[in-house]
Amino acid sequence: MYDVAIIGGGPAGVSAAINVKLLGKTVVWFGEHDLSNKGALAENIKNYPGLYAITGKELMWAFKNHAESMELIPVDEIVTGVYGKGGKFDVLTKENVYKAKSVILATGAQSIQSAEGESRLVGKGISYCATCDGFLYRGKTIGVYLTEKKYEHEAAFLCEIAKEVYLFPLYKNCEIKGDNVKIILKKPTAFLGNERIEEIIYAGGKCKVDGMFILKSAISPAVLVRDVRMDEGHVWVDRNMATSVLGVFAAGDCTGRPYQYAKAVGEGNVAAHSAVEYLSKL
Amino acid sequence: MYDVAIIGGGPAGVSAAINVKLLGKTVVWFGEHDLSNKGALAENIKNYPGLYAITGKELMWAFKNHAESMELIPVDEIVTGVYGKGGKFDVLTKENVYKAKSVILATGAQSIQSAEGESRLVGKGISYCATCDGFLYRGKTIGVYLTEKKYEHEAAFLCEIAKEVYLFPLYKNCEIKGDNVKIILKKPTAFLGNERIEEIIYAGGKCKVDGMFILKSAISPAVLVRDVRMDEGHVWVDRNMATSVLGVFAAGDCTGRPYQYAKAVGEGNVAAHSAVEYLSKL
Repeated sequence: MYDVAIIGGGPAGVSAAINVKLLGKTVVWFGEHDLSNKGALAENIKNYPGLYAITGKELMWAFKNHAESMELIPVDEIVTGVYGKGGKFDVLTKENVYKAKSVILATGAQSIQSAEGESRLVGKGISYCATCDGFLYRGKTIGVYLTEKKYEHEAAFLCEIAKEVYLFPLYKNCEIKGDNVKIILKKPTAFLGNERIEEIIYAGGKCKVDGMFILKSAISPAVLVRDVRMDEGHVWVDRNMATSVLGVFAAGDCTGRPYQYAKAVGEGNVAAHSAVEYLSKL
Repeated sequence: MYDVAIIGGGPAGVSAAINVKLLGKTVVWFGEHDLSNKGALAENIKNYPGLYAITGKELMWAFKNHAESMELIPVDEIVTGVYGKGGKFDVLTKENVYKAKSVILATGAQSIQSAEGESRLVGKGISYCATCDGFLYRGKTIGVYLTEKKYEHEAAFLCEIAKEVYLFPLYKNCEIKGDNVKIILKKPTAFLGNERIEEIIYAGGKCKVDGMFILKSAISPAVLVRDVRMDEGHVWVDRNMATSVLGVFAAGDCTGRPYQYAKAVGEGNVAAHSAVEYLSKL
């Protein structure tokens, strides 16, 4: 049982992990080994105090080095769900189940951009895991949404199983081909269906499906933590970075604008302190 | 008329100043030239992401360099009051009056540690400025509270004017002497009086006075901005760092715990963005 599970390898997650560890608590921290990809794209960051005119790559590298100096290495598994309450949470990844007394969501801006109907239909035809649920769609029609090229091997696996695949790559030069594959260079905007997903809507079209796979590194907080209160697409938090779910805190872009490094590290710091205060009351 | 006046040279003030300038607005920024003294005392800071195991002096130096690289130099004057509302503020220092459309309070933790009765009796016998108000106390009995050695010349000036002085130095080795000076090595905890200050209370004693001079670098936000809502000694702010007074924002230690560098720079960032958004609506 870890004291704190931190979900997200961006600036807010790094800051939270650093602080939880310095405050003497155990932490399991989920993120990509190369930390946030998105952050690394910035060409010239002038407003992270203390490191003037630095590239996104350099700043993420500084964050990574900082964490490694403290022997903090993120677990490179995608968290697909957080279940539990009141000091006992199961944090599910595609590979494992981790147990923690409290949770800090630092899932980033990408995670809040979910399509309409996504959170409602997760487990009802929408899945985040090809290897977990792919076998359910043998001989059926599915949609597959890929946010990054690195998920192509999972998409290719699904194309082998399914009869017909509508493929929505968010990046250029998708290399998946096949007679049963139709590539659509649009982003899905809504998923329709009552009991289960039935239809995908995208700009200028729609298609009927039996299932939908969304392959992305950060899943919406509203999907991860059922019943967490959202506010205009972001996780609602109070000034202590507490969410509406006891023992669950949030930090960084997922809590709202401005999407900024300094805001993210500040909120990660506060969330860590609040989580540790919460632990002291358990 | 400046777009934004920022009061405080610590991490929150630096971060706010950097962001306001990058967002294309004019800024007048108040702080000591050597930035926050308090910050410089930390021996080993491990939780400012990106700069691992740095001394407080090094971190403040990095902040100062960052600001100077952007040609941001704080005005080294102590702000004694902020008057106005709705896009028009007069920011008073001991020396000058500055005009600004919005204000960011980043006055630090020291500023919130005011004694009981302080904000109520300012202008009623309590003064922050020896040279401004000293002449009113010729031949009278006064108290003088000094937070730092650098205010000794002001205190010495008051000792020449007044008949009797109760001197409360917050530091060691106060060098002021005189037949009319009684040094008390305690902190004033309360100021009593109805229409005017009458009495100073400190641990283990009290003394009657006609006036009280408080010589410190950061004045309580509740004194600077009349009617600003406070919450258990700190400035109340919402998630956008807006205070209860329209056009006035706050960031850093003055808004509450944890008193941390990362929190302060994050809040400075958010306050700057909120101030600029406020300006766009004027």
